[in-house]
Amino acid sequence: MKYLATTLLLAVLLLTGCNQPETERTEWALALHGGAGTISKDIPDTLKQQYYDGLRQALRTGEIILREGGSALDAVEYVVRNLEDNPLFNAGKGAVFTAEGKHELDAAIMDGSTLGAGALTGLTTVKNPISLARIVMEESPHIFFSGVGAEEFANQTDVERVENDHFFTETRYQQWQRAQTGEANNYPKAAWTEGDYFGTVGAVALDINGNLAAATSTGGMTNKQFGRVGDVPIIGSGTYANHVAAISATGWGEQIMRNVSATTIANYMEFNGASLDEAIDFVLTQRLNPGDAGFIAVDAYGNISMKMNTAGMYRGSIDSNGNRVVMIWEDE
Amino acid sequence: MKYLATTLLLAVLLLTGCNQPETERTEWALALHGGAGTISKDIPDTLKQQYYDGLRQALRTGEIILREGGSALDAVEYVVRNLEDNPLFNAGKGAVFTAEGKHELDAAIMDGSTLGAGALTGLTTVKNPISLARIVMEESPHIFFSGVGAEEFANQTDVERVENDHFFTETRYQQWQRAQTGEANNYPKAAWTEGDYFGTVGAVALDINGNLAAATSTGGMTNKQFGRVGDVPIIGSGTYANHVAAISATGWGEQIMRNVSATTIANYMEFNGASLDEAIDFVLTQRLNPGDAGFIAVDAYGNISMKMNTAGMYRGSIDSNGNRVVMIWEDE
Repeated sequence: MKYLATTLLLAVLLLTGCNQPETERTEWALALHGGAGTISKDIPDTLKQQYYDGLRQALRTGEIILREGGSALDAVEYVVRNLEDNPLFNAGKGAVFTAEGKHELDAAIMDGSTLGAGALTGLTTVKNPISLARIVMEESPHIFFSGVGAEEFANQTDVERVENDHFFTETRYQQWQRAQTGEANNYPKAAWTEGDYFGTVGAVALDINGNLAAATSTGGMTNKQFGRVGDVPIIGSGTYANHVAAISATGWGEQIMRNVSATTIANYMEFNGASLDEAIDFVLTQRLNPGDAGFIAVDAYGNISMKMNTAGMYRGSIDSNGNRVVMIWEDE
Repeated sequence: MKYLATTLLLAVLLLTGCNQPETERTEWALALHGGAGTISKDIPDTLKQQYYDGLRQALRTGEIILREGGSALDAVEYVVRNLEDNPLFNAGKGAVFTAEGKHELDAAIMDGSTLGAGALTGLTTVKNPISLARIVMEESPHIFFSGVGAEEFANQTDVERVENDHFFTETRYQQWQRAQTGEANNYPKAAWTEGDYFGTVGAVALDINGNLAAATSTGGMTNKQFGRVGDVPIIGSGTYANHVAAISATGWGEQIMRNVSATTIANYMEFNGASLDEAIDFVLTQRLNPGDAGFIAVDAYGNISMKMNTAGMYRGSIDSNGNRVVMIWEDE
């Protein structure tokens, strides 16, 4: 009987005990991304250095907040603001051009401890869309505003405004010119294979109080049709945070949306007992196709995961144990 | 050793064999809703009869399509069109008024067999938003268009257009007048407790080829702020279909969105081995609060579930085994 009980216990352990995440909690943790895609390894060293510097600066912004006991929500907002203000990345200043030659910005933020969320699509005059998303989250009974209504919501706040051409950069203008000509017949894949056409910035964090938060911001796709909404402001697809994990996605928006990728990662952990790495692998390999997307995520224990099925993703992470990483390609 | 093997097998069965859904597949199945909320039992008999008749007519539309071997996608589109054209329900003709005294319509459709999806928010002149959502799904590389961009997309199609005041009904106008006055201080809960202020129509179906589809359409919330996007057009929240289940939600949009309710139901089934009923119960009791929402859903075996944590939901279902139901309250 004793032998039987032991065997039964063993069977139970075998069936339920696999794939458990680390249970010792890291005090705080932060990860960020600046977009995923086919990033050429031939980019000039000076430009490469600018990307690394940009990622490090943004990491440092979040590190200071989290180290001093600040909230995960503050950390992800200010990291994303920093990336929005950096013209290298496709969000805020540096956003890509729409088919009409303008800039339409999307952003979302989510507080995993309350499930509070704020999201916007089609902003044209808000300098830092992520900060307006936070105001939506904190001050509106609604979660999501679009287009002219989003601009009208902004008018009721003291968020910083700019002319639409504030978002102009020469690099994005050249990309748009190319997208309008030769690649029109093979849209959107032709754009995607050039990597920088899609792009997003995002941050996820765990703070010392154990709260998780996620934030994502983007200028969308180069040459996108007027009014197209991608995955970034869709709570559950490009951005999600709850008590299990905080996730921010980047890549081919429509693919991320139809798989409701961010929430599926959190659900796979919660319902299947999978680790964060395993859950992201599941979505990248069982739900998405090669070349579709990348994810940054942190779980409630401070485990960080940054994975993609693209050739590259601008990314970085840091935690209270002193681990610090900044990478672009897979093999670095 | 034989006894041990039997015991082990028993343990495995105990651990994995519970909560399995029915595995014998119903040929085809259809469910629909016309909104959930606190629906007064004191509504006049004639009006009650109109609701039952409306639900039966819509069911009949889908029944004819599915019985004759039509697709789940056709069934959900035409059922929702029928409900959009019925002024009793808050979608298409009969849509509620926005804070500005106009009508803004949202809709989404999803094909579970391909994960194809189409969604729109802020439509003002499209008679049947669900049919435009299907065109987005089938003809655009994008999934989701908002506001003026959504109207511009419509201009490129031959979808039927109307003036915005086509959507006017006296009943909704009176609701809007009431919402603008006494209830402004207690928004949105005051509106919600009146039931009909929120409202949605939706349909889910399984066809004889085993394909699942879901569709949802709405006029949003009475007195909603300009540009507010609710759960209906959010793939994963108000509308979702994959190989496991097709789900359409109705209720307090923001609560449905922050819990990514529809996809969480499908994921809970897939990752946890739960039945459709168990998955909906999980979301209604563990994720949402009493009074928040209702769901209609069908799984790949043709099991139908229609559940809510509100006092009522206009709903109906039919399947190839001859089961036919039309209900408003829980205890009928």
